[in-house]
Amino acid sequence: MSAQVNVALGERSYTIDIAPGLIRADLARYLPQSEILLVSDSNVGPLYLDAIQAQLGHARVLRYQFEAGEASKRLDVVEAIWSLLMAERFSRKCVLVAVGGGVVGDMTGFAAACYQRGAGFVQIPTTLLAQVDSSVGGKTAVNHPQGKNMIGAFYQPLSVLVDTETLDSLPARQWSAGMAEVIKYGALGSLDFLGWLEHNMAALMARDAVAVAEAIRVSCQMKADIVADDERETGRRALLNLGHTFGHAIEAHEQYRGLLHGEAVAVGMVMATRLSVALGWDAPDNLDRLVALLRAGELPVEPPPGMTPADFMHHMGLDKKVDAGQLRLVLPKPTGSAVISADFDPQALARTLADSCR
Amino acid sequence: MSAQVNVALGERSYTIDIAPGLIRADLARYLPQSEILLVSDSNVGPLYLDAIQAQLGHARVLRYQFEAGEASKRLDVVEAIWSLLMAERFSRKCVLVAVGGGVVGDMTGFAAACYQRGAGFVQIPTTLLAQVDSSVGGKTAVNHPQGKNMIGAFYQPLSVLVDTETLDSLPARQWSAGMAEVIKYGALGSLDFLGWLEHNMAALMARDAVAVAEAIRVSCQMKADIVADDERETGRRALLNLGHTFGHAIEAHEQYRGLLHGEAVAVGMVMATRLSVALGWDAPDNLDRLVALLRAGELPVEPPPGMTPADFMHHMGLDKKVDAGQLRLVLPKPTGSAVISADFDPQALARTLADSCR
Repeated sequence: MSAQVNVALGERSYTIDIAPGLIRADLARYLPQSEILLVSDSNVGPLYLDAIQAQLGHARVLRYQFEAGEASKRLDVVEAIWSLLMAERFSRKCVLVAVGGGVVGDMTGFAAACYQRGAGFVQIPTTLLAQVDSSVGGKTAVNHPQGKNMIGAFYQPLSVLVDTETLDSLPARQWSAGMAEVIKYGALGSLDFLGWLEHNMAALMARDAVAVAEAIRVSCQMKADIVADDERETGRRALLNLGHTFGHAIEAHEQYRGLLHGEAVAVGMVMATRLSVALGWDAPDNLDRLVALLRAGELPVEPPPGMTPADFMHHMGLDKKVDAGQLRLVLPKPTGSAVISADFDPQALARTLADSCR
Repeated sequence: MSAQVNVALGERSYTIDIAPGLIRADLARYLPQSEILLVSDSNVGPLYLDAIQAQLGHARVLRYQFEAGEASKRLDVVEAIWSLLMAERFSRKCVLVAVGGGVVGDMTGFAAACYQRGAGFVQIPTTLLAQVDSSVGGKTAVNHPQGKNMIGAFYQPLSVLVDTETLDSLPARQWSAGMAEVIKYGALGSLDFLGWLEHNMAALMARDAVAVAEAIRVSCQMKADIVADDERETGRRALLNLGHTFGHAIEAHEQYRGLLHGEAVAVGMVMATRLSVALGWDAPDNLDRLVALLRAGELPVEPPPGMTPADFMHHMGLDKKVDAGQLRLVLPKPTGSAVISADFDPQALARTLADSCR
């Protein structure tokens, strides 16, 4: 049940260790630094920080804990982290350890990226979504009032520690949201993995330890391979945004208080695949398989009630994936792979939005 | 009088073009992007932005101008730049062009580094100091209330355009401050360049165009070579901080309202060399040569009146070059080179501070 994934990025390479109980013991081996800041939120911090700190007797250890939730993903919260580090005179050789989900990881990574132009950064992701997605690839960010993740940096961690036992306490809805990203890797390219997921979705939803570890390993490995190829998202890495353009529109429309990110991506993947089918690029059967998998993962497959095609167009206009005024979408292809394209019939998009918003 | 320096950093390589009149014509060749933000300050902007913008008819051009001076080097000013870019829906393919001295360059570079995780960045440095120092090497930053340049990123520009004609309007004090960094390259390692400077200091102070272009070229080339070797300052690059630990202490003591950065570095170089001589690592003759060169450059060679050894110790305690509680200093060696060392007699430091603060 333990595995290791190597993210090959030259001098910025690092490993992802995956094992149950990984943070219960022997943590000092991963954190030899003498100045350590543990960053977490009000949900996760109380569960793990005491146990983590108890293993770090060799170091000066600080803690910073913020209110759980996307609303905390703000620059002024990162500023508070910097001020704490400055007040305690932490050097650039210190390490910031993110203990939590994607919000904690993104913010802690950004804080580390900019503190004295780059302090150490270690991730301990505690949600399924963070373990398979935001912990791989070095994307760090905070939100800007006018757009999600608009201020950030590409900054690689020194290491990522995935303790699958931290998932035991994850609420069902969060579990499903993470499963959406796992399913994305099935949809994105690997027919083997798509078939494996279809056979193992029941075990995954029952949180079978062996199946879960394997799903995390394959997802991390697929993402690591793509990121190693295209660290700064100038090309192929954009494939990982499958479902994200539609998904971000939903999240923005609901002001990030409605569907969870993974849930919105689930709907977005259905919409992107529907568009591919409408364009004749993908087979209707693939749409059916995707919808069935997402339903088995207890995920939504339709936009929230009341959201209109005009709402989508509005919110997609501000999306980062807009290149020189052209909307570029990640669209599945029948081979089980996908393309990034702005070269599609706009009427097919309009029809897809109309079909989806019912 | 025109030259080009290549900064070899793999896929982040760029060139520095040095020529008189470089920004008067043909600027679109360097700035083909379709979204351009010109950033400058209240001193420099009025001199150049109209002429620059007139050459960029192919692009959407925005401007952002802030109050000149170190006091503007704050995160909230960078936030205002981000908000302007967001309000105008500039994509991550946009380019931010810094037109001005080191403050403009550092802040614009940091804004570019973090906007959508990395927009384009081009430097048009208009002070001697920026042309020979802050335009090379990718250090970007803003100040934190508790320390200078504490929040930032390593982020390389796409290109640097050094128009030596922009120096014509530079006040004498700013000229000398830039000359301090030029002299630093003489002190740092190249005996040839040290000798060249001794023979050409009168021409440089008279702003002889040929001598000035050569001084800029050699300084940029030396810095480029060191940075190519050690982009993220894990080793040899720290040599470039010669005089900076003492210099920063002076700037902090005067709350950045006293000596200019270059002036403080001039004093710092004298103090570092004095310490080397006290340790027996450098010959007294080298201290004399350095002091003579700085005086010819109309630069201070002593700390400001009233500043005490205790003031230095206090401010050096928070310096970034403090490594695990040990003060590491760049100290000249008799060969005309220098070392980075924490392994010196603290009493020699105390004596140097006492000798310097008189």
